[in-house]
Formats: sequence, structure tokens, C-alpha cells
Amino acid sequence: MFSIEKLQQSFEQSLATLNISGDPKELYEPINYILSLGGKRMRPVLLMAGCDLFGGQISKAILPALGIEIFHNFSLMHDDIMDNSPIRRSKPTVHVKWDANTAILSGDAMLVEAYNMMMQVDDDLLRPILSVFSSAATRVCEGQQMDMVFEKKIVSIDDYINMISLKTAVLLAASLKIGGMIARANNDDIDHLAEFGLNLGIAFQLQDDILDVYGDKSKFGKQVGGDIIANKKTYLLLKAFELADDQTRQSLNLWMEKKDFVAEEKVASITTIFNSLNIKELAEKEMQSFHEKAMESMRAINQADDRKEILISLADSLMKREI
Amino acid sequence: MFSIEKLQQSFEQSLATLNISGDPKELYEPINYILSLGGKRMRPVLLMAGCDLFGGQISKAILPALGIEIFHNFSLMHDDIMDNSPIRRSKPTVHVKWDANTAILSGDAMLVEAYNMMMQVDDDLLRPILSVFSSAATRVCEGQQMDMVFEKKIVSIDDYINMISLKTAVLLAASLKIGGMIARANNDDIDHLAEFGLNLGIAFQLQDDILDVYGDKSKFGKQVGGDIIANKKTYLLLKAFELADDQTRQSLNLWMEKKDFVAEEKVASITTIFNSLNIKELAEKEMQSFHEKAMESMRAINQADDRKEILISLADSLMKREI
Repeated sequence: MFSIEKLQQSFEQSLATLNISGDPKELYEPINYILSLGGKRMRPVLLMAGCDLFGGQISKAILPALGIEIFHNFSLMHDDIMDNSPIRRSKPTVHVKWDANTAILSGDAMLVEAYNMMMQVDDDLLRPILSVFSSAATRVCEGQQMDMVFEKKIVSIDDYINMISLKTAVLLAASLKIGGMIARANNDDIDHLAEFGLNLGIAFQLQDDILDVYGDKSKFGKQVGGDIIANKKTYLLLKAFELADDQTRQSLNLWMEKKDFVAEEKVASITTIFNSLNIKELAEKEMQSFHEKAMESMRAINQADDRKEILISLADSLMKREI
Repeated sequence: MFSIEKLQQSFEQSLATLNISGDPKELYEPINYILSLGGKRMRPVLLMAGCDLFGGQISKAILPALGIEIFHNFSLMHDDIMDNSPIRRSKPTVHVKWDANTAILSGDAMLVEAYNMMMQVDDDLLRPILSVFSSAATRVCEGQQMDMVFEKKIVSIDDYINMISLKTAVLLAASLKIGGMIARANNDDIDHLAEFGLNLGIAFQLQDDILDVYGDKSKFGKQVGGDIIANKKTYLLLKAFELADDQTRQSLNLWMEKKDFVAEEKVASITTIFNSLNIKELAEKEMQSFHEKAMESMRAINQADDRKEILISLADSLMKREI
């Protein structure tokens, strides 16, 4: 049994020895750049922890874990172009440091490389694991497209939860599921584990929405209030629209329609509205409820409690994170 | 044994019944749009013909053939963004009809779908076929990146041939190879077949370069002279630079540096230079020499001549095509 830190360490070591290189260097440099930016490595750690939960060999989970992280970074590279994001983990994004074409193409090469890594499993697991991976990859694309469609309209909270399930939670669920499959856990336990990951992922994304507005500027690796500036339909904004009286709704609409504004003013004004409607507390409550659902699924898994501790404490720490 | 037309027909029928759909429709509509634009379906037909050459079951080649065509169209969708191409097969490109973000994301979803289709092979072929496919996919990305790097400099003809091998020929080789693998041909024959595909692919791309300048405007599905307008480093342009005297080279450079020009004038002037240097004939000679290499590899395959006829006539028709 391994601690989260141990799994993270072991993953970083494998990543450091990974050499994705070739000719032309213009294709491969951005890949190594984005992978070197760090991050929580949540998805590969979940994959490894999912394997460890059932006593599987971590060595068999490392390459698929690399595959999941490469896939995640492919999606970040392309999302950053689409969202026009200048900064990722306190560094310029690939389409800014290089250009959009490079970010498109290096991202494409990463998606192929993710499959290559995901193929490094026992023969009898190859098809089932690739199926889980491919299906999650498609869902991630659907979620990102939904996110872009939502830019143009106000949607319901239910639609929003569905979107973040696809865009974020499904990949967390798939990471855990693949880990469980490598450990050759039984199907019921794998299903519970995936359900744990799905609800944890939704809670995680809600936390992300909260941190974007209420995060500590000094610790946060991106622009604080970036979602507000970009009119992103987050849980916070949608909840505010749901609860606002006519005057407040008008005020929200005015800010969202404004083309010329000082970013700080817009962030401050909308945050004041959020505060007046208790949005932070409501979002935290929603987050807690998904966290609790995740814990229910965890309890349903037929494993000793001490083996579950790692994933439970990982889930807890994600709820308490500051970045 | 099937004729090319029969294989094309059978492929179009499968494509027509293929329903890549889901929610949100904004992700899936561009996929069906680009796949419906038609084209020669060269790669899937090669895959099916490669299977047929060794007496394999065409029914087992259909889904991987769809995978190859979906992959090819993914790369077209992304290339069109990068090359800023407004027209593909006489219709607006996806990034023009929708927008660049949609073209990025629908392309990503197509790459995943290509893997899904490519996975539809017998268990024992899953890993080897995915390896061939993945490796070709990586090469295609490398070739496209090289093509972009070449925009900024004059390169040698050898570098150019290497670039088009990666960008175009490797996928043709992989299509044939996968077909041969599905038919369970022996390794030597599969290698010869891949070599045939590689040289045919280079000849094909040279023909593409020639048609871009000398193609029949009424039959050509894209802008005639598009490569010239965009300063693309084609075989024609590179050969012209190689053979030009100082004055002609200066004239070429002037046209390439001009920011404001009438497209037709640039195309006419550079075409006149090409004509004065006999570039069309030289390009055709080079194309013939790769075609001949392809035929050599075909002759080395241990199969009855009548089984080879389809691929030989396909190769001949590609050399004589007008679009």
C-alpha cells in the first residue's frame, strides 16, 4: 500500500525518464513543455491508487498512468487555444509561447501518444481498457463542446452538472476504473470505484469554480476571476442567475454584455453579487453533497477499510485544496 | 477479387450506414459534414485492396477502412485550420463553415473515433494493427509540422521528399499493411506491400503538387495555384529554386516576399517561371520514378499476377488523375 505522496513521487520519476522526442523538434518541445509544468497529477495518481486499492502491481499501472496524464495535457493544450487562455500553471500556454498551429498539432501528437501508453497493458486487458479510455476521451470532447455552446446561453444547473461530468468527472472515473481493471478487481467493485470517481470529479470541478473566484491569488496558478471575465457559465454564475431578483439579474446581464470594462471592476462587482446571494456557501454545499455521494460508493466497495484510506484522504484533500 | 469501383462502392455503403452522432450536435455535425464531402477514398480502398490481394475477407477490413478514412479526414480538418484553407472539395472548410474551435474539437473526436474503428479487428491482431496505425498517425503529425517549418525556409528536395513521405505516404503504406495483416499475409509480402504504398504515396503527392498548378480548373475541387499563393514549398518551387539562374531566383524571391499582390498575377508569373525551367516535365519524371519503385515492390510480392491487377491499375489511375 502506498501513500498519495509516494504515488505522486513514483509517477514524477517515470515522467522524468519519459522521453517523448523526435524530429521535428517543433512538434515535441511543446509536449515536453506542458508535461513539465507540473500540477497535481491527479488522474495518474487516481489510476495508480485504483490499482493499489485492490492490491494490484503498481508497476503495471505506470505506463497507463502516463497515458492518462498525456491525454489530460493534450486536452489542456487544445482547451487553452479554444478558451484563449494566456496562462497555465503560472507559465505561458503553448499557443502563446509558440502559436495556435503548433498547439493544435502537438496536441494531436499527444493524443496518439496517450493511446500508445494506454496500450501497455496485458493482452487480455488491451481491448477492455482501450474501450474505457476511448469512451472517456469522447465524453471529454463532448463536455468541452457543451462548455463552448453554453457560452452563448444561460443553462440550468442540471445541464451544467451534466457538462462538467463529461468534461472532467468521466476521466477521473475512467482513471480509477482502469486502475481497478489492471488490479483485476471484480466488476461490481470497479463500478463502485468509477461511481466514486464520477462524483468526486463533479465535486472537484465545483471546487474549481469556487477557487476561480475565491482562491488565494498568490497560490493560484492562473488569473483570479478568469471565469467571470470570460462570462463562463460556472455553477456560481448559474446559481446567481437562479436566485437573483430582477434588479440583480439586470446588473449581471449588464456586466456580461459589456464589451469595454476594467477586468478588476467586473470581477469585484460580480463577486459582490455572489456574496449578497450567498453563492459561495451554496456551491460548497453542493460540492459536499457530491463528495458524500462519492463516499457512499467508496463504502460499497468490498475491500478492507485501511486499503481505502488513501483514496478517501485524497478525496478529502481535493475538497480542502487552495489551488 | 474485387474491382476498385466495387471496393469504393462497398466502402461508400458502409460509410452511409455509419452514424457518428451524439450530444452536443455541434460536435458531431462537422464530422458527418467532412465525411460526406466525398473524395477518392483512396486510403480505405487501399486497405481493402491490400486485404483482397491476399484473399482476405473484405468484411473484416471494412471497419478498419472506416477508421483510416476518419483519421484522414481528422487530419484534413486540422490541416485546413493550420493552412487557412477556405475550400475543400468545392465546399467551405469546417473552420470556415463553423469556426476554428469547432474544427479543433470535432477533429479531436474524429481521432478518437478512428481508434475505435481500428480496434474492430480479431483479438490477436489488435495490438499489431494499433501499433501500425499509431505509428503512422505520429508520422503524419511530424510531416505536417515539418511542412509548417518549411514555410519559413527553402529546403532541399531530399528534405521535401522526407516530409511528404511522413505527411502522406506513410498513411498509404499503413493502409495497405493493415489490409495485408487482416488477410494474414506473411511478413515479407506485407513489407513489400508497405514499400509499394510508400513509393506510391510519394508519387501521389508529387502529382498533387503538379495538379495544384497545372490541374484543370473546372475539375479541381480547390483553388488552382493555391500552393503558389501560399508560398508552399512544393517539389515544383524547390526544383525551380535549384535550377534558376540569379535573375530568375531574384524574381521568385520577389514574388514570395510580396505582401500585396493580385493572386492571379502571382500564379501566372510563377507558372511562367516554372514553364521556362521545364519544371512540370521534371516533376513528372520524378513522379514516374517513384511509381516505378512502387511497381518493383509489387513485383516482389509472392502472389498471382491477376490478384495484383487491381492495385497496379489503381496506381496507374492515380498517376493519370486530373483531380
